Amino acid sequence: MTRKYRVIVLRLGHRPQRDSRVTTHVGLTARALGANGILIAGPVDKGVEESIRRVIEKWGGVFEIASGVNWINVINEWKKRGGEIIHLTMYGVHLNLAINKIRCSSKDKLIIVGAEKVPGKAFHLADYNVAIGSQPHSEVAALAIFLDRLFQGKWEELNFKNAVFRVIPSKSGKKVFRVRNRHL
Amino acid sequence: MTRKYRVIVLRLGHRPQRDSRVTTHVGLTARALGANGILIAGPVDKGVEESIRRVIEKWGGVFEIASGVNWINVINEWKKRGGEIIHLTMYGVHLNLAINKIRCSSKDKLIIVGAEKVPGKAFHLADYNVAIGSQPHSEVAALAIFLDRLFQGKWEELNFKNAVFRVIPSKSGKKVFRVRNRHL
Repeated sequence: MTRKYRVIVLRLGHRPQRDSRVTTHVGLTARALGANGILIAGPVDKGVEESIRRVIEKWGGVFEIASGVNWINVINEWKKRGGEIIHLTMYGVHLNLAINKIRCSSKDKLIIVGAEKVPGKAFHLADYNVAIGSQPHSEVAALAIFLDRLFQGKWEELNFKNAVFRVIPSKSGKKVFRVRNRHL
Repeated sequence: MTRKYRVIVLRLGHRPQRDSRVTTHVGLTARALGANGILIAGPVDKGVEESIRRVIEKWGGVFEIASGVNWINVINEWKKRGGEIIHLTMYGVHLNLAINKIRCSSKDKLIIVGAEKVPGKAFHLADYNVAIGSQPHSEVAALAIFLDRLFQGKWEELNFKNAVFRVIPSKSGKKVFRVRNRHL
């Protein structure tokens, strides 16, 4: 799948310990569905970074990870370079009203997903505040549906290069084959 | 939105504390995207049940919750009543190969989502083992995409009855209105 833009997820409000598992889910979902990386605002969390890196080492692909970033600086830098900002929030406009415009623009996309409370400033800095339903649910679910619609379900065509293992899809069990040895 | 079948999510391998937040995300995602309820296998977890119930009380809708269920009993009972079982797993067949058949059957659907390790027996008891991508990511993401495709994105038309609050979709802020007083 060739892309005309980069997609980076910016995770806001991450608190180590309490949010580590959900933030790991956000990162792995971003990777599996075709985003290019995740930036985690808040304190540095080596545990989350390592969890995601272990998956990349085993299952392949190129995916950037950094924690401990300052989200305002990231947004300002992103805008300066001509990228656009999409904030996923239950308070935003319906996904269906925004997705075509977002998909068709060739600008790099920074996708903001928050933990429980997102500062009001994020709503104002975003070019789009987009709701994946106007009900409270999960930033992992919202990101998954957003990326699925953005890439029109083509994540199944993604190629995770340099994987050690690949899955052979199966009706009734776990079939995995080793593509190469580690560290080769 | 009228439905010809019921959809219940069965969460396997839930461990209180460690999995409470992710299981809550699974439950809220199930509710927001149109499932009828969640059954949580493993020990009773009143905390998760309460978190989901608080959302229902505030944001409305009808949604069943039970924790502490025995998953083998649930599956056997479901089959006895003529329902079908769909297990979401990275080892299964591609979503696109299975979704039309699942959507068009009028059988009630039990959607199994696991935590880290799912017993081999679950793969054999399921009528469908379905992969939302053959990469490790998140059961919350997998459930979200599955329900989105099952209901063809019509979750935006869901009507959450008896809500105390509703969101007014907005381009740049949080707009919420009170539909009724609590306990009326």
